[in-house]
Formats: sequence, C-alpha cells, structure tokens
Amino acid sequence: MSSSDRSGQEGVSGDLVSRVASSILNEPRTERLGEAALPDRHRIEEMVELVRHLVFPGFFGPRGVAKDELPAHVETLLSRIRAHAYEQIRSVLRYVEDIGPDQADNPLCARCDAESRRIADAFLERLPELRDALALDVQSAYDGDPAAAHTDETIICYPGVDAVFAYRTAHILHELGAPLLPRIICEQAHMRTGIDIHPAAKIGRSFFIDHGAGVVIGQTAIIGDNVKLYQGVTLGAKSFPKDERGRVIRGQKRHPTIGDRVTIYAGAVILGGDTIIGDDCVITGGVFITDSIPPKHIVRQKKPELVMRTNREASGA
Amino acid sequence: MSSSDRSGQEGVSGDLVSRVASSILNEPRTERLGEAALPDRHRIEEMVELVRHLVFPGFFGPRGVAKDELPAHVETLLSRIRAHAYEQIRSVLRYVEDIGPDQADNPLCARCDAESRRIADAFLERLPELRDALALDVQSAYDGDPAAAHTDETIICYPGVDAVFAYRTAHILHELGAPLLPRIICEQAHMRTGIDIHPAAKIGRSFFIDHGAGVVIGQTAIIGDNVKLYQGVTLGAKSFPKDERGRVIRGQKRHPTIGDRVTIYAGAVILGGDTIIGDDCVITGGVFITDSIPPKHIVRQKKPELVMRTNREASGA
Amino acid sequence: MSSSDRSGQEGVSGDLVSRVASSILNEPRTERLGEAALPDRHRIEEMVELVRHLVFPGFFGPRGVAKDELPAHVETLLSRIRAHAYEQIRSVLRYVEDIGPDQADNPLCARCDAESRRIADAFLERLPELRDALALDVQSAYDGDPAAAHTDETIICYPGVDAVFAYRTAHILHELGAPLLPRIICEQAHMRTGIDIHPAAKIGRSFFIDHGAGVVIGQTAIIGDNVKLYQGVTLGAKSFPKDERGRVIRGQKRHPTIGDRVTIYAGAVILGGDTIIGDDCVITGGVFITDSIPPKHIVRQKKPELVMRTNREASGA
Repeated sequence: MSSSDRSGQEGVSGDLVSRVASSILNEPRTERLGEAALPDRHRIEEMVELVRHLVFPGFFGPRGVAKDELPAHVETLLSRIRAHAYEQIRSVLRYVEDIGPDQADNPLCARCDAESRRIADAFLERLPELRDALALDVQSAYDGDPAAAHTDETIICYPGVDAVFAYRTAHILHELGAPLLPRIICEQAHMRTGIDIHPAAKIGRSFFIDHGAGVVIGQTAIIGDNVKLYQGVTLGAKSFPKDERGRVIRGQKRHPTIGDRVTIYAGAVILGGDTIIGDDCVITGGVFITDSIPPKHIVRQKKPELVMRTNREASGA
Repeated sequence: MSSSDRSGQEGVSGDLVSRVASSILNEPRTERLGEAALPDRHRIEEMVELVRHLVFPGFFGPRGVAKDELPAHVETLLSRIRAHAYEQIRSVLRYVEDIGPDQADNPLCARCDAESRRIADAFLERLPELRDALALDVQSAYDGDPAAAHTDETIICYPGVDAVFAYRTAHILHELGAPLLPRIICEQAHMRTGIDIHPAAKIGRSFFIDHGAGVVIGQTAIIGDNVKLYQGVTLGAKSFPKDERGRVIRGQKRHPTIGDRVTIYAGAVILGGDTIIGDDCVITGGVFITDSIPPKHIVRQKKPELVMRTNREASGA
Repeated sequence: MSSSDRSGQEGVSGDLVSRVASSILNEPRTERLGEAALPDRHRIEEMVELVRHLVFPGFFGPRGVAKDELPAHVETLLSRIRAHAYEQIRSVLRYVEDIGPDQADNPLCARCDAESRRIADAFLERLPELRDALALDVQSAYDGDPAAAHTDETIICYPGVDAVFAYRTAHILHELGAPLLPRIICEQAHMRTGIDIHPAAKIGRSFFIDHGAGVVIGQTAIIGDNVKLYQGVTLGAKSFPKDERGRVIRGQKRHPTIGDRVTIYAGAVILGGDTIIGDDCVITGGVFITDSIPPKHIVRQKKPELVMRTNREASGA
C-alpha cells in the first residue's frame, strides 16, 4: 500500500464530518440528496448522440447498413431514442413536481408518466422535420464558407452545425413542454462548441454559424430564414426590467428580432427586445446596435481613426 | 489481419528511430521521461469531481442518501478527496523539487510528504467555507439571469457556475501553497467553459459570469463582492515591464481592481494593474478602459456613428 | 423491468419508421450509411494523442523510460502512429474517391493504399521537425506570459500550446496531401481550446496564442516568425468573391498576411487577403483593420470618448 493510499485511509476528524454534514443540511439551495429524479447528463448525452445517428446516419453511428436493412435499423434507433427521451423527460417532470422515490402512489406520478409518454412520442414524430431542417442548415454551411470542400465536411466537423443540430433538437423538446432538458442539451453543445443558443429562441430555416466561439443567442431572440452569423455575435438583452421589489421580471421579450437573409459579422452586438434588423441587412464586424435597422441596409461603424506611431522597441528600430 | 494492421507491423527505419530519439535527448524543454512525479490530469479531474459531489451533493454524484446516512457519506467523500489531493499535491511538490523515483532516501521527500499532508488537511478544513461561497454564487446566478427558472438550473448547467466552482476550489489550493495544481484545475474548467480565470486572482462573494465564453481574468486581478460579468470580458494586462535584459518581469500587479456591485457587459476590456473600477459602477458592452473609474458611474463609449447604405446585392434590390 | 424500459420496448409505428426511412433515402446530403470509409473521430483523437506522446514525451504518455529503453519506446510509438495515420488517411482517400467496401478489386484501391503509405511514412519523417518547432513555440509561450512559472506549465496546461500542437500536426498532413483529416484534427483542438486555426494557414516559428478563446485564423492566412496573439483575435476574410452564378469562389487568398515579430492584442480583427501587417508591428486590442500597415508601427484606435453618468440605481445613491 503506497503512502498516498494510507493517507486516504486515515480517519477524517469527526468534527469536520459533522461541520460539512451541517453545512449540507443547512443550505437547501446546493443539496438534492433526497431527489430521486434529477436528469442524468450522461444519459442525455447518449440520447443526443442517438438522435445524431438518426439525423446524420452513417456520418455518425453504425455504417454499412444495406437499403433492405434500413427500416429495421431506423426502428431500433427510434425505439432507443424514445426510451431515453421518455426516461429523461419523466425524470425532469417528477423533479419539477418534486415527487420523491417513495411516492409511487402519488397521483402526480401517473400524470408525469403519461405526459412523458406524450412528449417522447411527439418528439419522435417530429424527427423527419428535424432531418429536413438540418439538411438545409448543412447546405447553408457549405454555401456560406469558401473553406468548406463539401457539405460532408460541415457535418463531420463544423461546430456551427453541431450547435444548430443540438439547438433544433432541444427546441422541439422545448415546444413540446419538456422543462430543463432542452437547456441541458443546449449547454452541453455550448461546452463542445463555444456557441450558446437558448433552446427557446426561434430560428428559421437555412441557418449557419461560422467558427462560432462566443456566439450568444438569447431566450427570446427571433431569427428569420437564411441568416448567417460569425464568431462572437451577441443577440442579447439591454437591461432587465425589475419589479417593485427589485427582482428581475422573467419571461418578457428581451432579445432582438432578425429578419430573413441577414448576415451578421464577427463580434457584432445587437441588444434589446424591440430591436428589429430588417430583411436583407448586412451588419459588419464589431457593430454595436440597440435600435432597429430598416430592411436592405448595410450597417457599419464609422471607421474609427487609427493612431499609428513608430514601434521604437522593435529590434533594429 | 487487415492491411492497415500490417502497415503498423512493418519495421520503422532504425535511422528515423535514432533521429527521433536524439531529438528527444537533445531538447530538454519538451521531455520529462525520467520524471516520476508529474501531476496526472485524469486524477485531478477525478478530484475536482469528488469536490463537486461534496459542494453540490445530489446534483452531482450519489443520490438517495437518507439523513442518517449523511455523516458516513460525507466521511467517505472527504476521505477520497484527501487521498486524491494528497497524491496530486505530493506529485507536484516532488516535481517542483525535482525528486526522481529512485530517491526514496532524499530528505526532501519527507518534507514534501509532510507538506502535502498539511495542504490536503487544510484544504478539507476549508470545504465548508467553499460550500458557503458557492451557495451565494448560485443565488447570484439566479438573481442575475431572467432566463433561469430556478437556482437548480444554474447548478445543473451554467458554465459560469462551473467555472467559478473550479476557480474557488483552485484558489484555496493556491492560497495553501500548492504549485501548478491550481492552474491545471482552472485550465480544465477553461476547456469546459471557455472561461479563463487564473487561480491567483482574488474574487469576492456572490460572483456571477453569464454565458462566459471568452472571459479572461488575469493572475493579479482583484474583484469585489456582488460583481457580474458577461461573455468576452477581459480583465487583463496593459503591457509587461521588462528587466534590463529584455525579459518580462513576473509577479507584479498587472491586472485591474474591480469594486463591489459592479456589472461589466459583454466584450468590455479593462486593462492595467493601476486601473480601479469603483463600487457600484456599470461598464457597458465593448468599452475599452485603461484608466480608473470613480464609484457609482455608468460608463459607455460615445455611440459610434453608424454608416448605412442600401444593400444592392439583396434579392429583389 | 422498469417502466422506462417498457416504454422503449413498445413498438414504434410502422408509419413513422417508413417516413424516417424515406427521409433518409430521399436526402443524400445527410446520409452515408453505405460509406465504408469515413474517418473515425475516436481513432483520430488516439492518433493525435500518440503524436503528443512523441512530441512531449513524459509530459504525456508513459514515464519512467530509461535512456537505454528510449529507442525501443520511440520505435513502438512511431509504429503505432504510422498504423493510425495509415488507417485514417486510407479511409479519407477511399471516402474522397467514393470507393465502397465491396470494391476490393477497384484499381483505385491499390492507388489509395500506396498513397496512404506514402503520406504516413512522410509524416513520420517530419516528426523531428515537428518536435523542433514545438520546442520553440513552448519557449515563446513562457517568454510571452508573465503568469507562466516555467515552460513546463505551458506544455501541461496552456490551451494555446495545445492548439498550436494540433495545428502543426495537421498542417504537415495537409502539406502531404491528406484530405479532410487535417481539418478534423484542427476542429477537435478548436473544441478543446476555443482556438480555430485552419490547417492550411501558414504559420512561422515561435508562435504563441495566449488565453485564446475566440481566436480564428483563416485558411489562407500567412503568419511570420515570433508572432503573439491574444484571445478573440480574428484573421479573417472581408467578403467572398462570387462567380456569375452567385456561388462563392473557393481557394483564393482571402485572409491577411502577418509579418515577423508582430503582437496582436485581444479582440483585434484583421480582414482581407491583400492586408499585410508589416514586421515589428503592434496591433492593440479591439482594433479593426482592413488595410495594410507598414512595418514597425504601433496601431491603436483613437480612444473613443467615454460617456459617464451617475449610477442612480446604485445602493445608497
């Protein structure tokens, strides 16, 4: 036994144990030990991977599936997706209703189970539509990036396609009424890609985010068709209205509306629930916008004056 | 055996082997083959996960722990955290002292072991304080984001909460004198979240970073209580003083000081060790600041003039 | 059997299965079920890890290798790297040539295999050069960051060193003619680090990216020696020339050229294929540049006027 193992075997002082235990009992915000029904991030990741196998079959998941084997392959995938979705939706619904593991006879249980089944089934029904939407997104990624050699490349390795795939999956679950789960799916994609899309945002067809790190699309943003964003773009809130007790008011439209065929270049920041960027606008890099822009305009900041001086520290200078 | 396996079995030319071996022997900066005591990133990740289980029990790690089982559960967790912490601290201390595996009788060994035990024990003692601090951070995350439905959501999936959890864990180890390990913990969180906080920065209570990708908080930054940052905020250095031989001087205060109740919006850049942002200031998005701001001020850049022209390429234009 | 399992066992409607199967058959862009030869992201990650073991031996991979064991250790590593590289290059070449699994007698197969062997062997030959380049990059990381305590720290946990390691590995494969694989390697590093370097970009010696989240270096960018970038820097394209049918023209120089000994601070955006930043320039934070800068100049934006007003909402104000 190494000394590091031995160190772990030494008793921890009873005083410390009871101080930590008290701190857990006395701080309900950070403790869910009795909670049987929290969503499981690994199972959610698995579910999203299975959806990816169905949306981009062969690119991800099993290959070498012959045409006559396809229905059986699809049935297996759908069945597994439904099992995962049902399990996780049921878990978040029970968690939201605060139903513990010892409450099998709670009438809410039966309602949660039925609701989970409804959402999981409806989610499956919308997978063909999800596939259609992502085929258009993939085409936009290829059309919008001269560095892409083929649409395949965008499916295989573009973070923007990954993030939009996760958003569209999560958004369907959000529309069907699943709480929390959509947010977790989007935050897992955020972690992978640096692209932060709230699942409640509304995004049209043929959407592409290039590079993408630092993009933030807020909860109440609305985006039209054929929109292209670059890295670092924020569609955010100006400031939050507060109630008379100083608490932020939740649920209002706080994020902008973007029309069809709009391109927004790197680092542009567009804020406010009343801000509308009209169809066919181009917003150039780094622009800071808090007012609406009429359709068919190119907006740039007046070129800031550059100040140049000789670099005296330069070698040989 | 497939041909790709066969390809791997073919001999590699002896000439290439000796050129690579020479390049390893001749370049001490990139080689630590004889080093027995480098920190192990997977073990460090495990340690951080165990701390997460203790700080947010039930949210992460085992659930369904009854109240009367709590002390035993806590004792097991503390014991495992200490074993991991002891092992990794001992490893970095031996590495810093350059003690090889064949030096069991080196008197520094005993000192490293004692020091590791001291730091690991002191780290455990500070875990209740870590829990208290994070409960306040979680409350700030909920209070500061209208999109959060519950404090739970911020614990389960907010990258800002994850990054601050990792920072506070690492900062305690930094204060206790553990080298390198705190930096690795923060860089692992940086990789997960896009938020780069140096473990030596000093950050007050009730701290929240929303969205977070691209945030950089430098080594000598000081941040007060109730501060909120958005994505892309940099608290950085202006330029580095160099010694007479042109080498950067390390260890000076190079990063700003932020007062209490300050909000800094997306993409603002605040630079310099002498720069102080006073209490109750609001720094709006994209502002570039290299001088101090007195308390209770809202700072924004003069709105840059927007230049708009018709988008003639727009369809139908 | 739990009810969630049961839910998964229920039959999925035959109608849904056939709608999904049709949507797969009718949308060739998102389906590669018959493709035997797509690159495998997990195997590519393994390959990159093996290269990392060779470039930074002991820091990553096995330790405690004695000097007389080094040649055998190196030979094993080289052999495994070649096997992985051969396998993945062969896979992407067959995929690009659209050779299915049932075409063993296709004459292109033999050509792909020979080409894969050529590239894998040439890649191995260039590993000493890769090691040399990365030793200089590591030195630059230490020299350029006052927060680094030792070059080791930059190897162990700097995302900038990780991203440049992945780029240099991928760039060699790109130069040798391997399609797709280099892009996947760079995008995997992008996911880990938030730093997006296209493998076709040309980058000189002693290159350092500090912090790094949000950095984008485009496909046709050219960067000299001793260049340092900070987080959020974009070396991007101005706009894309389109052909007479409105399709973007691929393969033109669209990204800037950066001279030797240039430093570019956080968030600076430099765009355009004709834009040349001369040797010994310093580009300060947030500058937006679309024109060339002569050598030995420091460029900053004219300090934008700050507007300050009292924060009446501040507590006590």
